[in-house]
Amino acid sequence: MKIISGKKVSENIFSGLMAKLQKLDESPKLLSIIIGKNPAAISYTKAKDRKASALGAEFKVLALENSLSQKEIEKKIRNYIRKWTPDGIIIERPIPKKIDLNILTNLIPPLSDIDCQRMDSLGMLMSGRAKYIPATAKAVLEILKFYKIAVASKNIVVVGRSLTIGLPLSIILMSKSEYGNATVSVCHSKTDELSRYTKKADIIITAAGKPGLLTADMVTKKSVVIDVGTTYKNGKLLGDVDFSAVAGKVKAITPVPGGVGPVTTACLFQNLVNACIGKRNKKL
Amino acid sequence: MKIISGKKVSENIFSGLMAKLQKLDESPKLLSIIIGKNPAAISYTKAKDRKASALGAEFKVLALENSLSQKEIEKKIRNYIRKWTPDGIIIERPIPKKIDLNILTNLIPPLSDIDCQRMDSLGMLMSGRAKYIPATAKAVLEILKFYKIAVASKNIVVVGRSLTIGLPLSIILMSKSEYGNATVSVCHSKTDELSRYTKKADIIITAAGKPGLLTADMVTKKSVVIDVGTTYKNGKLLGDVDFSAVAGKVKAITPVPGGVGPVTTACLFQNLVNACIGKRNKKL
Repeated sequence: MKIISGKKVSENIFSGLMAKLQKLDESPKLLSIIIGKNPAAISYTKAKDRKASALGAEFKVLALENSLSQKEIEKKIRNYIRKWTPDGIIIERPIPKKIDLNILTNLIPPLSDIDCQRMDSLGMLMSGRAKYIPATAKAVLEILKFYKIAVASKNIVVVGRSLTIGLPLSIILMSKSEYGNATVSVCHSKTDELSRYTKKADIIITAAGKPGLLTADMVTKKSVVIDVGTTYKNGKLLGDVDFSAVAGKVKAITPVPGGVGPVTTACLFQNLVNACIGKRNKKL
Repeated sequence: MKIISGKKVSENIFSGLMAKLQKLDESPKLLSIIIGKNPAAISYTKAKDRKASALGAEFKVLALENSLSQKEIEKKIRNYIRKWTPDGIIIERPIPKKIDLNILTNLIPPLSDIDCQRMDSLGMLMSGRAKYIPATAKAVLEILKFYKIAVASKNIVVVGRSLTIGLPLSIILMSKSEYGNATVSVCHSKTDELSRYTKKADIIITAAGKPGLLTADMVTKKSVVIDVGTTYKNGKLLGDVDFSAVAGKVKAITPVPGGVGPVTTACLFQNLVNACIGKRNKKL
């Protein structure tokens, strides 16, 4: 059994980015927008801040009060983008329920939509022409690529159908792209007898946000397990996989933390640097 | 074994539409845009013309020469839409390769995008908020609903991953919508041993455009088979299923022709009438 190191994959991506950045004569600018005081959203921006410093990228957070109206939030975002002209923009989730996220994502210029949040960016992803693959989905693809785990014609089970992870990841894995051509089964909370799907799978990707969901009886010694679950409980980060029981049984597995997480941050900066280069080429 | 009648489902939809139309004081206006002289595209418009007459809807075809440039085509479409203000607009596929379909679909006003061709409409579909479900995908869902074939928690295999049918249909079937909550496996030309997926499925939906793809050894007596294949060969319309051999073995099956085809047309007019009502309510 092999424990997949997210750190290795992430370092590999960052060293590639460093080389690209040395050729650029400007620092990429990343903007995170937070609405309200959600601890998960705040912790995401802290990780970005550290990595931005290490890379020499500029990073700013636009923190907006929960008490603002939809219109006021739109105005503040619009003004901030116009003044600072970031290369990449992310609206951190979750956002308060009263806010229409769709209207906000439309304020992101398409070329700066590095986490694929706009509706038309998602449509482009569906049609196989995504400008940027959402960072978490891309992290899974980069891990598989780095460890030379083939996906074409393989049986892949994705557990989770969220718009941010399960769905875009499944669509890319089943597409004709370089990361694709897999046969993907998308499972979720309404799936009848999850184990009958996971036991047949070459690769199991869990993105359900349910600690302990994947247990040892649901895998085989041929399984590759990628755990995208992120649940914070008593200050601890938990994946979806019962790691101690599953790890001994499978071919390869990602831990939580230290698996998909660090690669997600790396992929986000990869998208940011590509956005910055893309814009510069457009100006030339 | 039950042969599913597309005609029955379609008549049921049309009679519902007739009732809705009687309450409307205007005729819905449908525009088909054809570029070049593709026989399939032309045959699609003929079917629409007949149904539009029967319903009392207005139908026009904007036929554009293959020799026109992208810019000229855009201008003609823009002008036509401005003058005639159709309620629903479809750009018939296939279109010539030199044309950028994405730019053309963006000329369709979102409320008139009744076949879900715009990139942001596809993104809305992914996020579970589609204004209109693409007609062919909706036809499959309406057939399942009419015949009370449950999908929630069922094992559904979709063969085909096209942007027009396989992909949107799979996304809706796996979503949390009224038509959803199925566990969907998306198979395609790179799937290894298709039968190991189809044999386990409660419902098999073929949308591959490969006559004879689904054979009797790939189904069981519990299978429900929905054939969305449309291949024209020597003037004859062929599905993906080896009907004569498969029909005797399964629980239910759609024929070609007479299965999904007529329901697709009905669903398109359903979307058109909804678009017309939606616009009128907006004006009031």
